[in-house]
Amino acid sequence: MNTRLPVEPYDVVDLITRKRFAGALSDAEVAWLIDAYVRGVVAPEQMSALLMAIVIQGMEPAEIRALTAAMIASGERLDFSGLGRPAIDKHSTGGVGDKITLPLVPLLASLGVAVPQLSGRGLGHTGGTLDKLESIPGWRAALTNDEMRRVLRDVGGVICAAGTGLAPADRAMYALRDVTGTVASVPLIASSIMSKKIAEGASGLVLDVKFGSGAFLPDQLQATELAETMVRLGQDSGLRTVALITDMDAPLGRAVGNANEVRESVEVLSGGGPADVVELTLALAREMLDLAGMRDVDPAPALRDGRALASWRELIMAQGGDPDAPLPVARETETVRATSDGIVQRVDARAVGIGAWRLGAGRARPGDPVEHAAGVEVLVRPGDRVRAGDPVFEVSCDEEGRMARGIAALAAAVEVGDAVPTRRPLVAARIAEA
Amino acid sequence: MNTRLPVEPYDVVDLITRKRFAGALSDAEVAWLIDAYVRGVVAPEQMSALLMAIVIQGMEPAEIRALTAAMIASGERLDFSGLGRPAIDKHSTGGVGDKITLPLVPLLASLGVAVPQLSGRGLGHTGGTLDKLESIPGWRAALTNDEMRRVLRDVGGVICAAGTGLAPADRAMYALRDVTGTVASVPLIASSIMSKKIAEGASGLVLDVKFGSGAFLPDQLQATELAETMVRLGQDSGLRTVALITDMDAPLGRAVGNANEVRESVEVLSGGGPADVVELTLALAREMLDLAGMRDVDPAPALRDGRALASWRELIMAQGGDPDAPLPVARETETVRATSDGIVQRVDARAVGIGAWRLGAGRARPGDPVEHAAGVEVLVRPGDRVRAGDPVFEVSCDEEGRMARGIAALAAAVEVGDAVPTRRPLVAARIAEA
Repeated sequence: MNTRLPVEPYDVVDLITRKRFAGALSDAEVAWLIDAYVRGVVAPEQMSALLMAIVIQGMEPAEIRALTAAMIASGERLDFSGLGRPAIDKHSTGGVGDKITLPLVPLLASLGVAVPQLSGRGLGHTGGTLDKLESIPGWRAALTNDEMRRVLRDVGGVICAAGTGLAPADRAMYALRDVTGTVASVPLIASSIMSKKIAEGASGLVLDVKFGSGAFLPDQLQATELAETMVRLGQDSGLRTVALITDMDAPLGRAVGNANEVRESVEVLSGGGPADVVELTLALAREMLDLAGMRDVDPAPALRDGRALASWRELIMAQGGDPDAPLPVARETETVRATSDGIVQRVDARAVGIGAWRLGAGRARPGDPVEHAAGVEVLVRPGDRVRAGDPVFEVSCDEEGRMARGIAALAAAVEVGDAVPTRRPLVAARIAEA
Repeated sequence: MNTRLPVEPYDVVDLITRKRFAGALSDAEVAWLIDAYVRGVVAPEQMSALLMAIVIQGMEPAEIRALTAAMIASGERLDFSGLGRPAIDKHSTGGVGDKITLPLVPLLASLGVAVPQLSGRGLGHTGGTLDKLESIPGWRAALTNDEMRRVLRDVGGVICAAGTGLAPADRAMYALRDVTGTVASVPLIASSIMSKKIAEGASGLVLDVKFGSGAFLPDQLQATELAETMVRLGQDSGLRTVALITDMDAPLGRAVGNANEVRESVEVLSGGGPADVVELTLALAREMLDLAGMRDVDPAPALRDGRALASWRELIMAQGGDPDAPLPVARETETVRATSDGIVQRVDARAVGIGAWRLGAGRARPGDPVEHAAGVEVLVRPGDRVRAGDPVFEVSCDEEGRMARGIAALAAAVEVGDAVPTRRPLVAARIAEA
């Protein structure tokens, strides 16, 4: 009887060393690495060293494809083909004031496109869709696969927490990356996002890849590289994918926080709201309609005629929320004022995001709570004329002692000068399959 | 009452990220990293990611100095200042057939220089001094600090296992590096070696830094960079340090293994032995005498007139060994023969090292046993004329099944051609303090 353990086909130190010298790993080697990590044969410290080598030396397209496939293979795959209408997914790389998912999902649902939106929570200076929606009394983020399917069928859209069944290897890797300084890497971000999106089983995907100070990758070239990598991964696995490269140098809309972003989203769903939020919602909606084979449908009227708002109410109620309940209001509110006369040159999204985080709207570590009423209202946009003493931010918080730290983070967020700033387009580029 | 844990002064992910982008860490940051790793505040996966970033991005001289100081500070320091004679240390980066410590320590002891030689064991294709000496019946590598000091005082030299008290942080880091592909890095190797050597407290240090196929760093430029880095570290901490850059492209001497290397060392101590082993022993001895302020003493006569051999016998007996006991002899011996006529162009040290390892003389993992009688006798040198069928190696092993694998590793070790190979000097360069 042979009682020996099965012999592993590769030596992990050899593979780490190859990547350290910028060599490429084969499909079989990548598949083994991920599987062996999940099995505990490759230790976390070995995976960490490999991840750092990947962060610095990069990966070739075939390696990224193999990594994505290996993470998909580690878990279950969903299937939305039986809904009777196209299921189109959306993902944003995250930003400051980015509440677009909130108006976008009910808007599409009202037009007959199913949007299964498995969302995440905020971390650091960027907010999370689930945190925002949890401002609504009774609303539940955690659904079983069956509940998710039922809401999607009944309402046409669902926004819920990604379950633990999709790409569990990615979750294990991400937990490691988060503590080892190996998050910021195009191959690792692209494979992490796309493994979950491919496993979700939608028939089309629209990506909102952000650049600018409030974005995860501030550099537009890097954001474009990430978008191209993700579009190619979608294409390679049969998921039709389009990416918009969008500007996140200034916060999106006026509201940055949680409850205040829900309020602003309802404004948009009621035909109002800030122009930039409306513009990006419609731009993403048009791409999703296009992927759904509904290129001729104009989404704009549904925001004005109450259809999108009706879908929003259904969606909130289907997940236990009360769309009519008052949203939480903060105990303390203060006004931050301009310190000089001139034209607003810039409103720094990152500084605003950090301000909102310090006021209590964000979290430093996964699992920490957020304060739903805390946040920032951005009262000026680049190009606005201000005088010293004019209000530029209204800040809110619930917990004593946070106010001063939040205001300090916002001190340099608004830059005032003499020039009339060039208006930059919100959607900088569109990347689609070849 | 404040029951909170002390707040750490740095965020490890910030420091890892700085190094990932090739930034420099301050003295205080490096000191904190090592201390926090020893305390368990920095996790092994975080240290692994940082080590890989260091391996790829390098370290500035001040960072290497801080790393060395932090590893020294993690443990005890020895002091040999009360011996009444200078204590001069020696370190080799390791090679194939490198038994130089065995004749060198008693040679220096016989001339009045104290040599506290804290040695290691072999790993992979390179042998270890302690493994070789353990071929001698009764000889003990493990000594307490008191025993070590007593042997050093009574005999003038001691060769023993480094205790666990010196630079324990280095040992913890090395265990991690060994499994994460982060061994081969000049800053990490230099700080690892020098932290232990500085903590040992000798007043001078001679380094034998090897290059060529059998060396840890085959590239001569890299070996030189390592030597310069170590000499500078010695200088910065008041340890007078000299390095010889020596050729390890061919095995040193004829014997590669354990017991056979002891036999060859006794030949050298008796005035005989291979010319290269004698040459390197004397070159290192002269550097050590120089550091001891005995520049005018010629070490060569002590090898011929029995003084060095007498010290050897004392040294072996002081550590429980019997210098007259027969050394182990292998059960099986075979001859490897030349397959063509011509001039030996090259005897590949690495291939010979791997051959000896497979025959049982080396180990794949720390803690594995070695077979003392196993090994290779190298019968030809570059420049020798051979005819097909002439013996080139005599191989020995104790364990059935190892013979074929050992011989296979040696198949291409001897290169035969037409040209007369250029003779390369054994000592290629000398690097001393500015």
